[in-house]
Amino acid sequence: MTGGPTRAEAQARDADDPLAALRERYAIPDPERIYLDGNSLGRPAYAIEERVAATVTDWGARVVEGWPDWVELPRRVGDRLAEICLGARPGEVLVADTTTVNLYKLAHAALDLRPGAVVTDADNFPTDRYVLEGVAIARGRPFILAGSAEEALAEPNAGLVCLSHVDYRSGRLLDIARHRSAAGALVIWDLSHSVGAVRIDLSQADLAIGCSYKYLNAGPGGPGFLYVRREMQDQMVSPIRGWFSQRDQFAMGPTYDPAPGIDRFMAGSPPVIGLAALDASLDLIAEAGIERLAAKGAALTQLIIELADEWLEPLGFAVATPRSPAERGSHVALRHIDAWQVCRALIERAGVVPDFRRPDLIRFGAPPIYTRFVDVWDAMDRLRDLVASGRYREVDAGTRRVT
Amino acid sequence: MTGGPTRAEAQARDADDPLAALRERYAIPDPERIYLDGNSLGRPAYAIEERVAATVTDWGARVVEGWPDWVELPRRVGDRLAEICLGARPGEVLVADTTTVNLYKLAHAALDLRPGAVVTDADNFPTDRYVLEGVAIARGRPFILAGSAEEALAEPNAGLVCLSHVDYRSGRLLDIARHRSAAGALVIWDLSHSVGAVRIDLSQADLAIGCSYKYLNAGPGGPGFLYVRREMQDQMVSPIRGWFSQRDQFAMGPTYDPAPGIDRFMAGSPPVIGLAALDASLDLIAEAGIERLAAKGAALTQLIIELADEWLEPLGFAVATPRSPAERGSHVALRHIDAWQVCRALIERAGVVPDFRRPDLIRFGAPPIYTRFVDVWDAMDRLRDLVASGRYREVDAGTRRVT
Repeated sequence: MTGGPTRAEAQARDADDPLAALRERYAIPDPERIYLDGNSLGRPAYAIEERVAATVTDWGARVVEGWPDWVELPRRVGDRLAEICLGARPGEVLVADTTTVNLYKLAHAALDLRPGAVVTDADNFPTDRYVLEGVAIARGRPFILAGSAEEALAEPNAGLVCLSHVDYRSGRLLDIARHRSAAGALVIWDLSHSVGAVRIDLSQADLAIGCSYKYLNAGPGGPGFLYVRREMQDQMVSPIRGWFSQRDQFAMGPTYDPAPGIDRFMAGSPPVIGLAALDASLDLIAEAGIERLAAKGAALTQLIIELADEWLEPLGFAVATPRSPAERGSHVALRHIDAWQVCRALIERAGVVPDFRRPDLIRFGAPPIYTRFVDVWDAMDRLRDLVASGRYREVDAGTRRVT
Repeated sequence: MTGGPTRAEAQARDADDPLAALRERYAIPDPERIYLDGNSLGRPAYAIEERVAATVTDWGARVVEGWPDWVELPRRVGDRLAEICLGARPGEVLVADTTTVNLYKLAHAALDLRPGAVVTDADNFPTDRYVLEGVAIARGRPFILAGSAEEALAEPNAGLVCLSHVDYRSGRLLDIARHRSAAGALVIWDLSHSVGAVRIDLSQADLAIGCSYKYLNAGPGGPGFLYVRREMQDQMVSPIRGWFSQRDQFAMGPTYDPAPGIDRFMAGSPPVIGLAALDASLDLIAEAGIERLAAKGAALTQLIIELADEWLEPLGFAVATPRSPAERGSHVALRHIDAWQVCRALIERAGVVPDFRRPDLIRFGAPPIYTRFVDVWDAMDRLRDLVASGRYREVDAGTRRVT
């Protein structure tokens, strides 16, 4: 429990980190508290407060005359996201609504094109499972919860498969190009737990959705996004026929006629302030570059795994995340029989903020844009102390955190 | 064209206005430009910039530990909205998603409870018509576009009727308590063009939706809201089974079990910054009081009508809004054969911002919280000059504004 990389080695890696200076551009009001839950909710860049204030000022100055610009934001910010993070082409991504609503729209639209069952894996994120089951029932399709992503893709009756690109618990990362449905089902990739942290290439994907408030740092409840491969857009229609999806929106005509291209997946008015926050956050992600972010994320998670193997395995922990960097995102899950109590103790006694996922996982997120190697080292060191000393047992295990 | 109330009389009314001081708390960077389109997009209170900045700071300080508070915002801000503006009870209103998505959710949920057709009137707002038609098709129900609200309510085959409380073009206001479906259909009231400007009493209503960025001044694309009468909530389910509608959300369990009460109409994560903006705006609306706002709105629109009758009728204008204050909202539509060109000329040459609605209407909004009587007087005076002189014809009528 004493070997492994030293704190000085972690500090040396920070000194060599080409992304190190970006950390100073994020609000970190209490640096003693080590935040390793940016995979759940990212930190704000200072630029966001400025951009949001400027947006409110702009709203006051232009009022209704700002709309011709603001209506472009879902596509404009979507195009930036496509280029910076997704390996998608212009006109393939919209930022609007929530991840949940976007999944709902794409699932219905996909089922218009394919017979067969709605399939996901039993470990997929809850909102995906619930939404998909509801869509399947509404459409009279079988709903199949497969045992794994591979089983979902092998399902011979599948018409639609939805998979998380990075599993929100284990951190396992799937290869989009290699994971295809044997039955020719359309696949919706949920990028919520990968976007902004790993390299994504949607050139082989038909449909995707995702979240902006994890590694994209756009703020709590920031807008979701959706991707529809260009060649498929005009074959699909949204079940939610909102006026922002109408071809000649401000004609306000009598009949619905979906807009060409990605716009047909809009619904209501775009959340202008939320879009501005994401746009400002993307500036920093672009500056870092997704390749460098992915490389640093792989190195940070590697350090977590190395220290866990060295220090924590003897204390009853097991690494629940793939050991190959190519097969994981930017968080690591550790399994422990007292995971809930250990997690609470880390937060309440040790100044380390990971999160707990039932039944027995503690997730340590390492958003590469503002996380230091020494943060990871210190967090693992505090965890080792807490468990080796048994002090974590002092924490009341009776109540559970909400998130 | 020279009689009617004088400018001095308008100024005297501002001097007597108990709400006059509230105007100073709104950002009005160019007071020479008379903004009469707050019925489309309201102005920001200065308090919004402060609250939004505080919310970003709070996000940075608490990060994921803020969620236990933030998840309450849709209901907490909904309860405030219910009390301040809607005549609804606690636990009956949620602020989340967009007006469009909320209509979609309630329309599907309502059709689970009633057989029969989906009915609206042909003059209803476009997104309502498009969404409802899509829902009707998806559910295999007839879709009927009635000639008027009364015809919609008289439709014998109706299962669901959707009506705007205030018509977005004519400004006509319906009495919710008196307007009921003869067939016993559920009625969804769209409050987008009335909320914050007129007194609303939902005690006789089953279902409603609305928008926060018109008279509620929450900013472009601010979150929508929905209302479900308490006694009906547990009979209804949302078609979008998002994780925020799940009974024990963070158990992340295998099966969907809708939360009791209004929470079951949530979908994805709430837009925290947008909710904070609305919450700040509601402080000012509460301070004004909806009764005083409604009284001032009626007086402002009355002044528009009086001046239009006196000055503009001889110039080819006709008032298209009901003359009884009890039958109109807080905007007035004037009909003119060259409405489009006149509207452009007002904006480009006269420093007055109304808006145009096809085919021949100019809408003058008078949001009572920041609009002065002298603003209305000056706007009508500039309009009179522009048309009497024929100068409005100098404006190119070839291109059309987006909004």
